[in-house]
Amino acid sequence: MKAEIIAVGTELLLGQIVNTNAQFLAESCAEIGVDVYFQTVVGDNRGRIREAFDIARKRAELIICTGGLGPTQDDLTKDVLAEYTGRQLYIHQPSMDKIEELFRSRGTVMVESNARQAHLLTQSDPLANDTGLAVGAALTFEGTHFILLPGPPKEMKPMFKHYAVPWIQSKMGGVQPLFSKVLKFSGIGESNLEHQLIDLIQTQRDPSIAPYAKEGEVMIRLTTRAASQAEAESRIEPVEREIRSRVGEYIYADEDMPIEQAVLRRLGQSGRTVAVAESCTGGLLSDMFTAIPGSSQVFLGGVVCYTNALKNQLLDVPLDVLEGIGAPGAVSKETAALLAENVRRKTNASVSVAITGVAGPAESEGKPVGTVFVGIAREEGTVVEQLKLSGNRESIKLKAAKNALYLLWKQL
Amino acid sequence: MKAEIIAVGTELLLGQIVNTNAQFLAESCAEIGVDVYFQTVVGDNRGRIREAFDIARKRAELIICTGGLGPTQDDLTKDVLAEYTGRQLYIHQPSMDKIEELFRSRGTVMVESNARQAHLLTQSDPLANDTGLAVGAALTFEGTHFILLPGPPKEMKPMFKHYAVPWIQSKMGGVQPLFSKVLKFSGIGESNLEHQLIDLIQTQRDPSIAPYAKEGEVMIRLTTRAASQAEAESRIEPVEREIRSRVGEYIYADEDMPIEQAVLRRLGQSGRTVAVAESCTGGLLSDMFTAIPGSSQVFLGGVVCYTNALKNQLLDVPLDVLEGIGAPGAVSKETAALLAENVRRKTNASVSVAITGVAGPAESEGKPVGTVFVGIAREEGTVVEQLKLSGNRESIKLKAAKNALYLLWKQL
Repeated sequence: MKAEIIAVGTELLLGQIVNTNAQFLAESCAEIGVDVYFQTVVGDNRGRIREAFDIARKRAELIICTGGLGPTQDDLTKDVLAEYTGRQLYIHQPSMDKIEELFRSRGTVMVESNARQAHLLTQSDPLANDTGLAVGAALTFEGTHFILLPGPPKEMKPMFKHYAVPWIQSKMGGVQPLFSKVLKFSGIGESNLEHQLIDLIQTQRDPSIAPYAKEGEVMIRLTTRAASQAEAESRIEPVEREIRSRVGEYIYADEDMPIEQAVLRRLGQSGRTVAVAESCTGGLLSDMFTAIPGSSQVFLGGVVCYTNALKNQLLDVPLDVLEGIGAPGAVSKETAALLAENVRRKTNASVSVAITGVAGPAESEGKPVGTVFVGIAREEGTVVEQLKLSGNRESIKLKAAKNALYLLWKQL
Repeated sequence: MKAEIIAVGTELLLGQIVNTNAQFLAESCAEIGVDVYFQTVVGDNRGRIREAFDIARKRAELIICTGGLGPTQDDLTKDVLAEYTGRQLYIHQPSMDKIEELFRSRGTVMVESNARQAHLLTQSDPLANDTGLAVGAALTFEGTHFILLPGPPKEMKPMFKHYAVPWIQSKMGGVQPLFSKVLKFSGIGESNLEHQLIDLIQTQRDPSIAPYAKEGEVMIRLTTRAASQAEAESRIEPVEREIRSRVGEYIYADEDMPIEQAVLRRLGQSGRTVAVAESCTGGLLSDMFTAIPGSSQVFLGGVVCYTNALKNQLLDVPLDVLEGIGAPGAVSKETAALLAENVRRKTNASVSVAITGVAGPAESEGKPVGTVFVGIAREEGTVVEQLKLSGNRESIKLKAAKNALYLLWKQL
């Protein structure tokens, strides 16, 4: 089934809020095998909402609208769709009872406009709102299905999941659901990965092979329609095997998780702990670890040693390594190794990661922006790798942290 | 000028990423007086991208596209627009030089597809990409202006701001330019701020008064159209004065900068330095400081002491303060003060900030999620404040860091 998502709301057109509803609905549609080909955002304007309906009907069998179900004069979605389909609006009594009850319990007076939230179109099915007041609607008009959902995500999401999805599925008949498998890569760029798999991607049929890059990571999603998980796996498996035979060394997970989570999980499974010493990444790697719930079982903490003085005072790197004529300098193999070894010793961590480099905007110690050294210390010994990264300050910090995680991953 | 934003990318239709680009572009268009009436999302599909162009041309004079400028076979925006407008694609040599130079400096082989990022349409103006490889384009076709921007926000935003906006303004003709002034607030929520200014907001005419909240900060933008800066200032000044008389204590800057930048600037002006001790924020505050170019003049670094052992080993907090029956615990006034004082002493910083609390998802030491203590140590003494924050783990980390910065700001 082809679908279009229409978000109604001038606040979206003004950029005052981000359209996270479209992301949620798109992802949910993909999961139930509904193909979203277009998303549209339109303001609180009768003529333009009508126009959006007109266009969407030509290219979709299912139109999912969010927003415009509230009590104010700006909330027009039901009014416009009633006019558009030649149907009437009436008060949906169970919804009205709920609204009145709420105002009674608060002891406040219900203003008349609140009744708008109980409006329903004739010849439509109500979609209950378990977390708010505005009732949703599902209806079919001349072969096109319409779903009307409220704008606030905390009302929209449960309504869609519990009431709209079963309604949509009842209209879908025999379409097989989609199954997909994600492979996450680190240590390889999107274009290089695609290059290695170009023949597979160009001749892909079933499963489809889609590479994506975001926030310093690359993933491939393999997708197929099948009657069962087992049938899907039997089709995905040979393609996955071929991909692994070519670029398997860069795969760190077969589900969608960031590499820091994969690292923490692997460390946790063997009861190991990790500490960090960060110079050019300035706390980013620690922040990434601690963003993962439960990280405190594995991630101990560490030192952000942004200056040479702190590298010396907190992590005992000798000043004559850091500074002076002929010294290796703060951005060097030697300093990366000492930082890693010393933070490991001081924290009693099983393994440690140290990152020192030049994030920019200016070069440092005569070393160009993007020069980064990563040290990994373990009981077995210490390894240091040099990276040459490109981009602005933020990008170099992110790439340095992600690359350090990949180097750590390879050591585990 | 009426505009439409078209985001190209199957990953958006599948709900794999959120369309934050549309929000940024919509907000930026509003600032320069361009009216966005529709936003569209379309997949990486030639026919449907064409269809989106067809529809947008009927209802907009300016079409801003994001995405589809990358190196892969899926990146179609330039190809489709060239076909659509009957123009040719050629290699834009300065962009090609940059790509080749990057691969040379990395010592890696450039695969042929990377050249696609240097493609430009004939009869178009290049938009430089200062933070990535894909060159953007601006062109006019039969009265419709097209702007092509890359999909990654870190490339798209600076390209739009520095190169697309002046190009668009040059096409806007006799409309008086917009002037705006931003006031940044900390320590006050958006709804409370709006409440204090509700009469001004409701009766606003010129300048317009728009409050925004994002990423733990609140700002007010005052905007007016005027022939000159002086004329704009004469209209903005009395409104700004009224706002300051009511909520001036929460204003930390009169330009759009994050509070960490305002803190670093104020410290730098008086030659002072800062160090941090982070428990529940886990490196986020350090990361925020080090995201600011030049921060190394003021921010020394610090300790991420995620576990009690590290609070003790690296920052000398006595174990009997941290643990045991009747002990204040890691999340306490006492620990916050000791962390701040000890990190200041060990780093020789002028001031220090310590944050310890419960980010969730589970409570800790019997203290509920959102309990956070912030300590600020200076030569004059130490202050500690307790915060009660709400939200998920990520949100609590962010609010804790931003609130700590506000407390530090007040001490400076």
